Amino acid sequence: MKELNTDVLIIGAGYAGIAAAKKLREAGKDFLVLEARDRIGGRTLTENLSSGATVDLGAKWVGPTQHLVWEWIKETQTATYDTYDQGKNLLKFGDKISAYTGTIPKIDPISLIDLGLAISKINRLSGQISTSEPWNHPKAKEYDAMTLATWMDKHLWTAKAKHLFEIGIQTVFAADASEISLLFALFYFKSGDNMDTLISIKNGAQQTILKGGTQGLVKKIAETWMDKIHLNEPLMSLTQSDEGIMAESAHLRVKAKKCILAIPPVLINTIGFNPPLPQQKAQLYQRMPMGAAMKVYLIYPTPFWRELSFSGQIVSDEYPLKVTFDVGHADTDLGILLVFVEGNDARNFIDLEEQERKKMILERVEKIFGHQAANPVQYLDKCWTEEVYSRGCYTGLMGPNTLTQLGPQLRVPFKHVHFAGTETAEKWSGYLDGAISSGYRAASEILSQN
Amino acid sequence: MKELNTDVLIIGAGYAGIAAAKKLREAGKDFLVLEARDRIGGRTLTENLSSGATVDLGAKWVGPTQHLVWEWIKETQTATYDTYDQGKNLLKFGDKISAYTGTIPKIDPISLIDLGLAISKINRLSGQISTSEPWNHPKAKEYDAMTLATWMDKHLWTAKAKHLFEIGIQTVFAADASEISLLFALFYFKSGDNMDTLISIKNGAQQTILKGGTQGLVKKIAETWMDKIHLNEPLMSLTQSDEGIMAESAHLRVKAKKCILAIPPVLINTIGFNPPLPQQKAQLYQRMPMGAAMKVYLIYPTPFWRELSFSGQIVSDEYPLKVTFDVGHADTDLGILLVFVEGNDARNFIDLEEQERKKMILERVEKIFGHQAANPVQYLDKCWTEEVYSRGCYTGLMGPNTLTQLGPQLRVPFKHVHFAGTETAEKWSGYLDGAISSGYRAASEILSQN
Repeated sequence: MKELNTDVLIIGAGYAGIAAAKKLREAGKDFLVLEARDRIGGRTLTENLSSGATVDLGAKWVGPTQHLVWEWIKETQTATYDTYDQGKNLLKFGDKISAYTGTIPKIDPISLIDLGLAISKINRLSGQISTSEPWNHPKAKEYDAMTLATWMDKHLWTAKAKHLFEIGIQTVFAADASEISLLFALFYFKSGDNMDTLISIKNGAQQTILKGGTQGLVKKIAETWMDKIHLNEPLMSLTQSDEGIMAESAHLRVKAKKCILAIPPVLINTIGFNPPLPQQKAQLYQRMPMGAAMKVYLIYPTPFWRELSFSGQIVSDEYPLKVTFDVGHADTDLGILLVFVEGNDARNFIDLEEQERKKMILERVEKIFGHQAANPVQYLDKCWTEEVYSRGCYTGLMGPNTLTQLGPQLRVPFKHVHFAGTETAEKWSGYLDGAISSGYRAASEILSQN
Repeated sequence: MKELNTDVLIIGAGYAGIAAAKKLREAGKDFLVLEARDRIGGRTLTENLSSGATVDLGAKWVGPTQHLVWEWIKETQTATYDTYDQGKNLLKFGDKISAYTGTIPKIDPISLIDLGLAISKINRLSGQISTSEPWNHPKAKEYDAMTLATWMDKHLWTAKAKHLFEIGIQTVFAADASEISLLFALFYFKSGDNMDTLISIKNGAQQTILKGGTQGLVKKIAETWMDKIHLNEPLMSLTQSDEGIMAESAHLRVKAKKCILAIPPVLINTIGFNPPLPQQKAQLYQRMPMGAAMKVYLIYPTPFWRELSFSGQIVSDEYPLKVTFDVGHADTDLGILLVFVEGNDARNFIDLEEQERKKMILERVEKIFGHQAANPVQYLDKCWTEEVYSRGCYTGLMGPNTLTQLGPQLRVPFKHVHFAGTETAEKWSGYLDGAISSGYRAASEILSQN
């Protein structure tokens, strides 16, 4: 077993870990990064497909207020594209398919009012939540004792509006409304401004696509100091003394003064800590399960739906195809349709054979876009619940009674160990921007001690 | 690293693992057990205190319908005692202390009716749930989309009744009602018959105390084959091939044809599986956090409260002392008062200094029992959230949207690996009896394959 020494050891080379490393490097601090996978990027993964398309199998978009990601984009001179957002969106409900424009589907006036009211109500509630201390809201305990589904039952009256709201929730959280606490949902919305921002393309979280993908961006950030990153080194144990930490990974023993854990919460509980994690933190990380996110890509010779005046955006009530986007862009002729399968749907869908999955998806798309949709040049899907070093995506969720009781533990250091990861972010928690800010914060905690 | 070979490798020497081993042994099967701790017994831990009292710091009681535990009691000729249950119970609400007999405290008639109706309502609901397939109930999805706290909000109208109901829930689950799914609660009640059984001494889950404690019982079961159990061997990795499994613990490499995991769900995710756990199982074990259970023992020269015609049972609204029992027994003169601190209370309370904890508890007891309560000969407490090889107690809980979506995965084997543990039991899930039946079931799965 090889022994190494450094000042700061960073665990995890996703956006959070790379951001922490970047900040330490700029401050002239000695550091090393251990990464469990054979690649950097964590929950981003960009692939160049045989069809010629470049696709993000993990995190994909950048929103206009995700300033930290934009700093990286500028620094690396990465080209960007707007997500295609012209023409008519399609809503499939039962046997009926209707076209609409904008974010809110064309449904009957009553359902439309119901949906609009619910979204504005939840935006009003989330507007009152502090992202730094959501547990301090006067009604925090009440909001944290119920699921978001319970809130929806109370505040949504029409089946259609409820259904559409639920699809929005699944797309935002990669989980069902029944799984998450109302308070956590309010915090999450506020963290990215509001629900509208999270579900929108224009001025929203789905506005911009990166040339070379989101993994490409983080690779560019780290490309001149990749020698600091040790791949294929899953962390096994972490021992602390007064002097510092000693970490053991698959093939390395690293001594450091400080450590930053930049991995998903659920993975923190897999590390052998000596001394053990404080009990409140250990209980917290048992209570932040990862969502179930799946991306399905259909690559076509052309984005034929555009010629039919369709945007490529579908909202449908039929498992497994509930939400799609056109993610083609300026420098390809290919039509790239992205299908989201989320939450319970994702866990069930990925257990089918690939041929069956492809067949089901294509049947649904064909029903909506017609026969041209039946023969993509390529089908590719990925479910993040199968990734051992993420255990799901997009983020660590909180069911009821977690944020109020254990949320205050999120950013508390444990002796020499500091905690990064998008789940610890106040702004854009669950997103790339939150990952970057969390890495910067953890690095700052260490830099400010010297 | 020493290499061993066996037919069946059992991970965990708690009640489930020992039960599995016992069954395999009786069938003449070759087996070994790896245990992470330096002792057997898992979530049971019996200590002989300097004051002369023998106390269970973990699981304590046996109920009359826990037939599998009774078989062990008979087989080992273990003496038993009835939990002391005579005299008046005490209810402290605000500044008022009132005495009552039976399980239901003496409160105003309206609150009393409210409480009685809620308990009978929840018993009626849980009576409809199948313990083998709770996810198949027609309303399973609805019940699993809300917390038990939400149900209480709807069905309990008086503050007092709600408060008492909540104390009952905390004592049964070692968690708050806001943390668990209604469906999970209904399953859990049904699994032990009904809510009354779970909160009662007489004919209930708190009826019988074992001489030598519950850890003493499992030690007797295994005492002639302790050579089969390797202590201090936390499992690190588990590799499977067509032929069988290869397990690596701290100091051993064990090859076996089959494996039984008899450890808490949350610990399953800490094992390095190769190939990885199926994604649905991996997601399940992220969603079964352990409760937070704490036991506080106050040892007095005599059970002085008995002379005052008190039972030693207190129900109080004041943190941290909410529920107490007299657990003294026939062959000691000592008064042994057991205080439960549960859920959020437990996590907060254990983080205080021991002197502060003792002071707070004694102040509360003195307020109720008078000055004689101020000077116990011994104070001892234990919070199971601090136990690295349990991560909490009593059991792995389910928040909303877990039992319906991932519950069917609980008992599904993964190639050569079978799953025991009280959380996998249909009857008395969360209790010792459920642990035994789960071990027997897992062993039977393997025996039936040969």
